[in-house]
Amino acid sequence: MVPMNLLRTFDGAAEYVVTGSWGGRAYREASKEGAARVAWTNEAERFVRTPRAEELLESLASDAAYVHVTTNETIQGVEYAGHPATPESATLVADASSDFLSRPMDVSRYGVVYAGAQKNAGPAGVTIVLVRDDLLARAPADLPTMMDFRTYVASQSVYNTPPVFAIYVLSLVTRWLLDDVGGLDAMLMRNRRKAETLYDVLDEVPGFYRGHASPESRSLMNVTFRLPSEELEATFVAEASQGGMVELRGHRSVGGVRASIYNAMPVEGVRALAAFMREFRDRHA
Amino acid sequence: MVPMNLLRTFDGAAEYVVTGSWGGRAYREASKEGAARVAWTNEAERFVRTPRAEELLESLASDAAYVHVTTNETIQGVEYAGHPATPESATLVADASSDFLSRPMDVSRYGVVYAGAQKNAGPAGVTIVLVRDDLLARAPADLPTMMDFRTYVASQSVYNTPPVFAIYVLSLVTRWLLDDVGGLDAMLMRNRRKAETLYDVLDEVPGFYRGHASPESRSLMNVTFRLPSEELEATFVAEASQGGMVELRGHRSVGGVRASIYNAMPVEGVRALAAFMREFRDRHA
Repeated sequence: MVPMNLLRTFDGAAEYVVTGSWGGRAYREASKEGAARVAWTNEAERFVRTPRAEELLESLASDAAYVHVTTNETIQGVEYAGHPATPESATLVADASSDFLSRPMDVSRYGVVYAGAQKNAGPAGVTIVLVRDDLLARAPADLPTMMDFRTYVASQSVYNTPPVFAIYVLSLVTRWLLDDVGGLDAMLMRNRRKAETLYDVLDEVPGFYRGHASPESRSLMNVTFRLPSEELEATFVAEASQGGMVELRGHRSVGGVRASIYNAMPVEGVRALAAFMREFRDRHA
Repeated sequence: MVPMNLLRTFDGAAEYVVTGSWGGRAYREASKEGAARVAWTNEAERFVRTPRAEELLESLASDAAYVHVTTNETIQGVEYAGHPATPESATLVADASSDFLSRPMDVSRYGVVYAGAQKNAGPAGVTIVLVRDDLLARAPADLPTMMDFRTYVASQSVYNTPPVFAIYVLSLVTRWLLDDVGGLDAMLMRNRRKAETLYDVLDEVPGFYRGHASPESRSLMNVTFRLPSEELEATFVAEASQGGMVELRGHRSVGGVRASIYNAMPVEGVRALAAFMREFRDRHA
């Protein structure tokens, strides 16, 4: 919907910062709707990091329709440490599907933020979309009604019957974040503690576990790493599963191991995985 | 999605049989994607019936991209008594959102059937779509991935994370229909009995309650009627609400009273409403 609404009537191209699989897909969809280009990527390095501030500034054109980033790449486990350092004049569009509500976000810096709820915010089947008011004027007149951002604004998101159950659960999650967790600053601290618990295991003995992401771009949501062989990776996943730690196989497109530790994963779950990782390493190193 | 997939690459126009508000909206959306025309409507009579077989046959062109019908119009309470009498050569497309799974449907007569789940099949947030295999070839090459029927066929409907909770509840409803209700023939008998219980009240004393739909096009899902005055209608809705019978106000675009009696409404609920209608009439006639 972003390129439909923001690109069709705009002269400049949309610029995509591709730091992983999801950014690549977003770019390919945009290319169907208008002029789009990859402003920066490190696909050649197999997506191990986000761009440095100066790389980003050098790569962006001043007349872009918008600059699209993926704040966290789930498959590679690569996340911006803070806000992407785009120029203030740029219209920044973020796919924040996998880290929205996992940490504070200064939404005033973005033209559009969109996020499927199913990672940190609620059940699959509802998407949160924030659009800066002035961008609504860019949408062409003849968009399909359900694809037009203005439809949702004009109807306060109830043009059609919305997914009420998913929205209800989302409201419970946000209340939990406010009342029980103590807000997004506290959620960030908790998520940072969880991620560090696992990255510490990767770093403490070099050579056995090898983290995929460069340290400065490590995701707080998805900890991705390899073992010395694919056989050991398969054994690791199988033994972890016997211990009740499941869904650890890396995405089929990259292999390895991936621990997804979204908001709902308690610290205790991460500690159990860290203990298993150390024990497994001791047996196989 | 229907006009995107079936109309853009096709020479003939899409023909819309507009028997109520939803059909009108579908027609207006199709007009954005390609050539579309209203083949038959009775909007001038305020949508009181579906077309007769001979009217439909006369009105349809032989080279249409497809013929679109709305099997039940919720706002007007107008439903096809059986399958629309379109020629066998026509590609029949049905918005069956409000009566899918309320009665048997010979899906082999349709090119496409689509139905939001939220009336008879499950919670809001999932849509059932059936597409005849040969129609998939009509989709243009450059459709947005999520708008392309082929994406869902190729991925067995899990290209993206689907709304799993809604699909789970839908599976419970279909099991209930099979195991507890006894199938769609039994569901139709139950729905017919419910509708007749209310239509009988409209018919037994002429003049007080006036049904909106012509008798041959009466909906089994939405029983729509007027009272002698808007004041009485407001009193009716308010008193019914006090008795626990809610959501009876007609859609704001047509006024009056509407009793929606989808699969989930038990016979007892309909009987209670019928008793209240008689009692209310006795007091106010």
